[in-house]
Amino acid sequence: MKKVAIILSGSGVFDGSEIHEAVITMLSVEQNQASYQCFAPDVAQLHVVNHLTGEVSEGESRNVLVESARIARGEIKAVTELNVDDFDALLLPGGFGAAKNLCDFAVKGADASMNSDVLNACKAFANAGKPAGYICISPAMIPMVYGQGAKATIGTDVDTAAGVNALGGEHVDCPVSEFVFDEQRKVVSTPAYMLAGNISQAAQGISKLVKKVIELA
Amino acid sequence: MKKVAIILSGSGVFDGSEIHEAVITMLSVEQNQASYQCFAPDVAQLHVVNHLTGEVSEGESRNVLVESARIARGEIKAVTELNVDDFDALLLPGGFGAAKNLCDFAVKGADASMNSDVLNACKAFANAGKPAGYICISPAMIPMVYGQGAKATIGTDVDTAAGVNALGGEHVDCPVSEFVFDEQRKVVSTPAYMLAGNISQAAQGISKLVKKVIELA
Repeated sequence: MKKVAIILSGSGVFDGSEIHEAVITMLSVEQNQASYQCFAPDVAQLHVVNHLTGEVSEGESRNVLVESARIARGEIKAVTELNVDDFDALLLPGGFGAAKNLCDFAVKGADASMNSDVLNACKAFANAGKPAGYICISPAMIPMVYGQGAKATIGTDVDTAAGVNALGGEHVDCPVSEFVFDEQRKVVSTPAYMLAGNISQAAQGISKLVKKVIELA
Repeated sequence: MKKVAIILSGSGVFDGSEIHEAVITMLSVEQNQASYQCFAPDVAQLHVVNHLTGEVSEGESRNVLVESARIARGEIKAVTELNVDDFDALLLPGGFGAAKNLCDFAVKGADASMNSDVLNACKAFANAGKPAGYICISPAMIPMVYGQGAKATIGTDVDTAAGVNALGGEHVDCPVSEFVFDEQRKVVSTPAYMLAGNISQAAQGISKLVKKVIELA
């Protein structure tokens, strides 16, 4: 059975992993006869957002690994423990946490950089020629991991796409139900909630992306 | 298009809604050509559990409605705003939150009672003859909503089943891939993570339950 590592970034669309995307990713992995193990960086979140009001919860602090454990039902490890030799593929769901906690794209745009432990983990898959799938806003990390010219999609948002290109990527517009495949680098991306109007739309592209990544593994 | 109300109980298996169950419920609703609106009680959680360690996070407090908003991407209302006239069916995912925040079954067992606002909402569907689906540990509430003799399943756990019977329900053993249907009361239940060893097993019973509830609507 193929084994997939999933890197989470908290639990909740506005300050962590987008929960629908993370769960659909996990379900799709199993429905493609593979298994998964979740990881997350053991760092403080950039901030905590009250998801009812949309406001930052001043003075509150939460840990990315501890909150990600909610989606993983406690079965999660620090990303420093991710050994590429143990896995066949890598998946990164989206949510603002991907752009706030795994990297700082949400704050710095074209000047963004990645959490070094997450970068090491992602580069290990790239260097080993093992496939990876980046979902929603996570593809903003593709140029940081794969370097100049790597193909990625975040959907069709012009400003965000410009940010991906400024980081050295080659943004490709993509509908929510499809994915973009950089064949040379074995990296796949899909817009999910960058474009999706509801959960079933998000599920279309994610399930196709996961199937493709596992086929490549 | 049929409209379904979903009552959440927080965000995370140990102190709130089981996230996989909640997301699979939402996805299944849309895949059956219906739409959903999430609700939750605007009350403090019984407690906060660190999902990495499994320990109670002493001194920390979180609100059920605010945390449930993470699963609902902010699109959620207080359960006091749930008007049965606006919906065709009701669904309650599981997780310990259902037995800690919607009722106190996790603490009081056979002496349990429900949050009065949640009870009012659930009874409104029962009294209107509109179908409802209770998932995982949520079926412990079925006797509290539907009264003596209501059929319910929480899987096969002997002690938990005895608790359901002591509350006046009629527990029926059920495998993870199936559901129990009380035809007289139009109430459906499935064990999900009371029995499931992984997310795809949980999805089997939940997707069948949601399909059945929407057919009944």
